[in-house]
Amino acid sequence: MLLEDLRRDLPADRLVDDPDVVAGYVHDEAEWAPHGKPEVVVRPRSAEEVQAVVRACLAHGTPLVTRGAGTGLSGGANAVDGCVLLSTELMTAVREIDESERLAVVEPGVVNDDLRAACAERGLWYPPDPASAPWSTIGGNVATNAGGLCCVKYGVTRDYVLGMQVVTGTGELVRLGRRTAKGVAGYDLAGLMVGSEGTLGVVTEVTVKLRPLRDPEHTVAGYFSSIVDAGRAVAAVADAGITPSALELVDRHCLAAVDAWKNMGLSVEADVVLLGRTDAPGAAGEQEADRMLACFEEGGATWAARSTDQEEADALFSARRLAYPALERLGPLLTEDVCVPKAAVPEMLARIEAAAQRHDTHIANIAHAGDGNLHPLLSTPPGDDAARERAQEAFHDIIRDALELGGTVTGEHGVGLLKKDGLGLELDGEVVAMHRAVKTALDPHGILNPGKVIPD
Amino acid sequence: MLLEDLRRDLPADRLVDDPDVVAGYVHDEAEWAPHGKPEVVVRPRSAEEVQAVVRACLAHGTPLVTRGAGTGLSGGANAVDGCVLLSTELMTAVREIDESERLAVVEPGVVNDDLRAACAERGLWYPPDPASAPWSTIGGNVATNAGGLCCVKYGVTRDYVLGMQVVTGTGELVRLGRRTAKGVAGYDLAGLMVGSEGTLGVVTEVTVKLRPLRDPEHTVAGYFSSIVDAGRAVAAVADAGITPSALELVDRHCLAAVDAWKNMGLSVEADVVLLGRTDAPGAAGEQEADRMLACFEEGGATWAARSTDQEEADALFSARRLAYPALERLGPLLTEDVCVPKAAVPEMLARIEAAAQRHDTHIANIAHAGDGNLHPLLSTPPGDDAARERAQEAFHDIIRDALELGGTVTGEHGVGLLKKDGLGLELDGEVVAMHRAVKTALDPHGILNPGKVIPD
Repeated sequence: MLLEDLRRDLPADRLVDDPDVVAGYVHDEAEWAPHGKPEVVVRPRSAEEVQAVVRACLAHGTPLVTRGAGTGLSGGANAVDGCVLLSTELMTAVREIDESERLAVVEPGVVNDDLRAACAERGLWYPPDPASAPWSTIGGNVATNAGGLCCVKYGVTRDYVLGMQVVTGTGELVRLGRRTAKGVAGYDLAGLMVGSEGTLGVVTEVTVKLRPLRDPEHTVAGYFSSIVDAGRAVAAVADAGITPSALELVDRHCLAAVDAWKNMGLSVEADVVLLGRTDAPGAAGEQEADRMLACFEEGGATWAARSTDQEEADALFSARRLAYPALERLGPLLTEDVCVPKAAVPEMLARIEAAAQRHDTHIANIAHAGDGNLHPLLSTPPGDDAARERAQEAFHDIIRDALELGGTVTGEHGVGLLKKDGLGLELDGEVVAMHRAVKTALDPHGILNPGKVIPD
Repeated sequence: MLLEDLRRDLPADRLVDDPDVVAGYVHDEAEWAPHGKPEVVVRPRSAEEVQAVVRACLAHGTPLVTRGAGTGLSGGANAVDGCVLLSTELMTAVREIDESERLAVVEPGVVNDDLRAACAERGLWYPPDPASAPWSTIGGNVATNAGGLCCVKYGVTRDYVLGMQVVTGTGELVRLGRRTAKGVAGYDLAGLMVGSEGTLGVVTEVTVKLRPLRDPEHTVAGYFSSIVDAGRAVAAVADAGITPSALELVDRHCLAAVDAWKNMGLSVEADVVLLGRTDAPGAAGEQEADRMLACFEEGGATWAARSTDQEEADALFSARRLAYPALERLGPLLTEDVCVPKAAVPEMLARIEAAAQRHDTHIANIAHAGDGNLHPLLSTPPGDDAARERAQEAFHDIIRDALELGGTVTGEHGVGLLKKDGLGLELDGEVVAMHRAVKTALDPHGILNPGKVIPD
């Protein structure tokens, strides 16, 4: 029996089978994705304990679903019926921060913001900053190849993972990647693990690259009377050759939801707010901020200014980060994550508006606009099945539109369950076959997060 | 018959079987690596022609070895007996440079410097700059995940590949990756192809990310009376939190060889020259150059200065780029490519000197010192078999030392043939098994560059 094996190999406090507690582990924040019922939740404290869990699953042919904080937005960490649900929440050690090598070695359950804070104490910086950074874990960030606000300049999680320790699909505990600045010793299996959503291995330790702390940022805010105008400003920033350190779009619906929740006194005079930042050092930063301001004006801003007040600037960015949970309070949210070429941002935003109207669906928008990574947030009144169906149609239309414009179905949230069909539309059938071949090669017994990512 | 199929499916001028011409294709620049004799050399002009070649190889179970310019340094592109040798030299189209998306789409045979020049005309920059940039191709750079001089700040080829078109091991022509700034749609198969040295697919088109042209660089040069002092200066730069845009080490042997060849009037008063650059914009660049200078002095420079003369600075960097071909003129070269943690650079350089003495072998040193990526160049008098044997022993000692210091056997040249044994030392047996499983998954018939990379 699986449970007997787990009880034999792990300290008793690692196993959770109280149904009320287990219920808190069955799905991530993709409320619309289906989930099953795990047989047991395990919370290992070491790589060796993770290995024992994987081996027990192998022995019994039991599916294994790994999860971090459960802030995922695509159902990637949702339980499969009868699975072992492995939570990394107790593996929270920051093992090492090496200042001269500029790297950190952490357990997968370390919260993103906690790593950031530990690095800052040493004058170092871990850039990837998903909006979920106060809650999400490095392991989860690695599993989804999480993006974030500063990724427009500094890249995504993948760009910071040097190496990792992994329990493989055959139950071996191995090291992939490296600690050196460069390295091409064999296939990039560490890179392959990043973004594979727990389907190719279970990460037990991650070695990430760090940067020196950067210069303070300059913030530019712009108000626009239409989302399409804001999209034009975004395109103008790209065309001007500016590399902002953030370029975020937040619409009135999001600002209002945050304000209603947190009473931050946010202005909602505008339909859309664009928030740009630059961290170019010294005078170059001042100049870049001025050029960004000119682009906002060129795009048709009704009001735009460089923020002289750091608190005000921080409040605007906090509002951006709180937009998702604020809207979530108002009803079930279906989150989109399409990413389109930068030049296609105005057209894509217009198509999102059209989909909202066509399917009579409320769609709020937040976007990593500088990356072309858009997050239309589709919400429906609780219990309104017809509205739910209309929202799903809008969701599919948005996917189709993004692909038509040369985009991808997921910029940073991952495929999980919500984007499996979309992935099937995006990839050639032969590429799906390559996915299956790689999956079978590294998880020959099919126990790792089965049914996720790869289109059926 | 294979040749009949190729003649049927390709225009006649794509096939080369004149033995004198074929002889020019049998190996790359890793003179010490063995090579076989190809049955035929093919020079396709399109992805469809590449696909026809792969399918012919599949039909006849014939090995296929792909090569770019043949500037590789590990034997990765060396012919296998009876293989089809596919040269990408006629696939040289720069299909597209998109200024607002900051990307380029190129055929694999485009020379690195040609892409760089084409981008510069549009105010854009393709950073990866292997010393072979005037000759090596983007396809070859992708196959080896090539590094270069500016990688210490800007990353390696892998960091710039967004997507690609590939003929798979089953003869399908597919697209991997994306054109958007971000994307996590499925496994990172494009990333897996980068650095796989032609063993997982044949790249027929590459989409690369570009940056805006950067600010002019400031150069700092330092002379050192020992390689260990220079190593200390490198560690000081890292500890000071400086991110140079290049930090290169060249020893007296290299400078003398370049001077003997090109008569550049280079100073060879010093045992070792360190060349640092920074491209931080405006006043920040001036400050960073001054701080780097202080680090050189702290490391024990006998002379150090910021170059006020751009021509002089360019001459020093040209000498760096010419070091390898200059030494190659003097006799067979065995090229090392170990990469160690930055703090271990002084110790590793000392160990290289010790290996040279212990095995009575002439070792010149060039290094991407800021990355800890060292290229000891072992040379022997032509025809001296005993010296050759001693050099091989030194080569193995250097690999062992690098692994002992937490390094990798190859920082940027790839495994090919020269580092297969070293890779076996570096990777766990289980990780080698993962390599074999991935290789079999994507090249089920074993035709793609067999016998390379994966330890036997």
